Amino acid sequence: MAPRVLICSTIVWAHDDVKSLLGDIAEVVYVDSPDRKSFLAEFKPGGKYAGAIGIYRENSSSTKLGVFDKELIEGLPSSVKWIAHNGAGYDPVDVHACIAKGIYLSNTPGAVDDATATTALYLLLSTLRQYSIAERSLRALKWKPQGLNNISHDITGRTLAILGLGGIGLRLAELVQSFPMRVIYHSRNKNPKAPSYCEYFENVDDLLAQADVLSVHVPLRPETVGLVGEEWIRKLKPKSVIINTARGKVIDEEALIRALEDGHVAAAGLDVFPNEPEVNPRLLEFPQVTLLPHMGTENQDSQRKMEVRALTNLRDFLTTGQGKDLVLEYQKANIAVKVNSKL
Amino acid sequence: MAPRVLICSTIVWAHDDVKSLLGDIAEVVYVDSPDRKSFLAEFKPGGKYAGAIGIYRENSSSTKLGVFDKELIEGLPSSVKWIAHNGAGYDPVDVHACIAKGIYLSNTPGAVDDATATTALYLLLSTLRQYSIAERSLRALKWKPQGLNNISHDITGRTLAILGLGGIGLRLAELVQSFPMRVIYHSRNKNPKAPSYCEYFENVDDLLAQADVLSVHVPLRPETVGLVGEEWIRKLKPKSVIINTARGKVIDEEALIRALEDGHVAAAGLDVFPNEPEVNPRLLEFPQVTLLPHMGTENQDSQRKMEVRALTNLRDFLTTGQGKDLVLEYQKANIAVKVNSKL
Repeated sequence: MAPRVLICSTIVWAHDDVKSLLGDIAEVVYVDSPDRKSFLAEFKPGGKYAGAIGIYRENSSSTKLGVFDKELIEGLPSSVKWIAHNGAGYDPVDVHACIAKGIYLSNTPGAVDDATATTALYLLLSTLRQYSIAERSLRALKWKPQGLNNISHDITGRTLAILGLGGIGLRLAELVQSFPMRVIYHSRNKNPKAPSYCEYFENVDDLLAQADVLSVHVPLRPETVGLVGEEWIRKLKPKSVIINTARGKVIDEEALIRALEDGHVAAAGLDVFPNEPEVNPRLLEFPQVTLLPHMGTENQDSQRKMEVRALTNLRDFLTTGQGKDLVLEYQKANIAVKVNSKL
Repeated sequence: MAPRVLICSTIVWAHDDVKSLLGDIAEVVYVDSPDRKSFLAEFKPGGKYAGAIGIYRENSSSTKLGVFDKELIEGLPSSVKWIAHNGAGYDPVDVHACIAKGIYLSNTPGAVDDATATTALYLLLSTLRQYSIAERSLRALKWKPQGLNNISHDITGRTLAILGLGGIGLRLAELVQSFPMRVIYHSRNKNPKAPSYCEYFENVDDLLAQADVLSVHVPLRPETVGLVGEEWIRKLKPKSVIINTARGKVIDEEALIRALEDGHVAAAGLDVFPNEPEVNPRLLEFPQVTLLPHMGTENQDSQRKMEVRALTNLRDFLTTGQGKDLVLEYQKANIAVKVNSKL
């Protein structure tokens, strides 16, 4: 009997790929449980999901199961060996619970870089040039607001500080080279893949003091919650701009609002918020802010790429016992996940 | 006595440059006439503007004189030898009346390229990725609209067709190289300065059939009014996007609206309109359209660059008898303007 694989969130673009990647090596079951309890119940012998080895999931609202927290992970049977998460940020899956349970977790890192960096570039253009407020003014039949030039600048020649130079940060660095902007970055370590035009700053204070734009690209982990807070924001060059396409909670929203209020931060471009889909209504009060509803990878080309990448991780695991894109916690700590990787 | 120079529109950013460029070689007079009639009257002997040789102007609302049409040009005294227009598009100045009257006309071509191409890039990102509608949805407290992915795409790998590969078109071609996009273009002639990644299409029909995005960069002249009309729009690849940062009248607005209505054109990004600051309210009905109030060069860095460039044209004329940036009609037709270029 072919190993059973569960599709927990709607596949939107890669229907054909499900068949071509998994059709001949797995029994694909589309999860239709109305809630978490009935989902877990179906793993019992004879149940719809009994014996399932792999799970495909994403953060979309199409899943009725919510985040894959400790409770859900611990409720999975020992047959489950691999969770293929569709998305770069995998904070909605409790990776430590997965490790404890002997389940591999993969994400879709490279597939999101181009689309997310493009969203960051859009926010950078919108905030430095104040296009968003300009469009709102036109749509209110007021044509161009007065005094926009006082807070708007050319992109070319300005300094972009990237916080966290992973795949998305690197792609943004590439995208702004065509102007060019000066690119400086801070990461826990110097990125050996960084091209020479990316200047590494070990000292984050020095980075912040030189930034015209700070773009945030660190994952959400316990140690990155509120990382960009009062202290760092006040060390930013006055009248700088903050862009966030990573996770809302990496920025201390109250500290950002204070800095927008007193003008220390000239503008902000936010694609992510601490409690999505809720948005703090105080952010709406700042005309110079551009706000997007988590559009990072939203488009059919990248969505398909991501779906295919996550499905491919499952296929690779099923055929070779190893999937690509195992998340950082497995790679870095060299954790020996106690699963029998030979099927 | 130093030659008299008139500043007809408010200098916003280059106050110090007026002094450093013209202070020691000209008598600078700031025009404060409340209307055109009193302006022309002050050229009489003994008047405030009598004997003026050079004029600085732009299209801003700060000038009470309106466009420099045939009537105004013909009303100028023969002392006037050079009009330094601040802006790339000089359609608000009647160049043929200038030639007939023996007045040179300069614009500020290079100074606008970066900022205007950046505006085109912003509109390209906004329309291909549908960021504008997404922000409006968030600001209406509705988070993300459903079905956005059906009309949104990655930028990378798509085909940008540039209509008119002058300085702005070339700069846009450069800016999208970082993705990259494929760049194809049509101009009256092949641009010898075009880098190899810009493919020339002599036949505009072939260009339109391959365009995912058509970006318009031709000046407004009698022969370009309505150039992008019903015929060309219908030859565009279905579901393509139209961007205009040139002049509103280059596109037949009614034909564009019809194509948006029936879906032949998927989206449009417009920075310019036929009767600015009026905007056809029917455009506001299309959620997939991004509309900006002529933000092309709106930012303090480019505005300063343009003011300095126009003032430098005046200075060069005063000191050498030749200014740079003489507009195309003088260069191309090799027109011998009958002015005594020696002062």
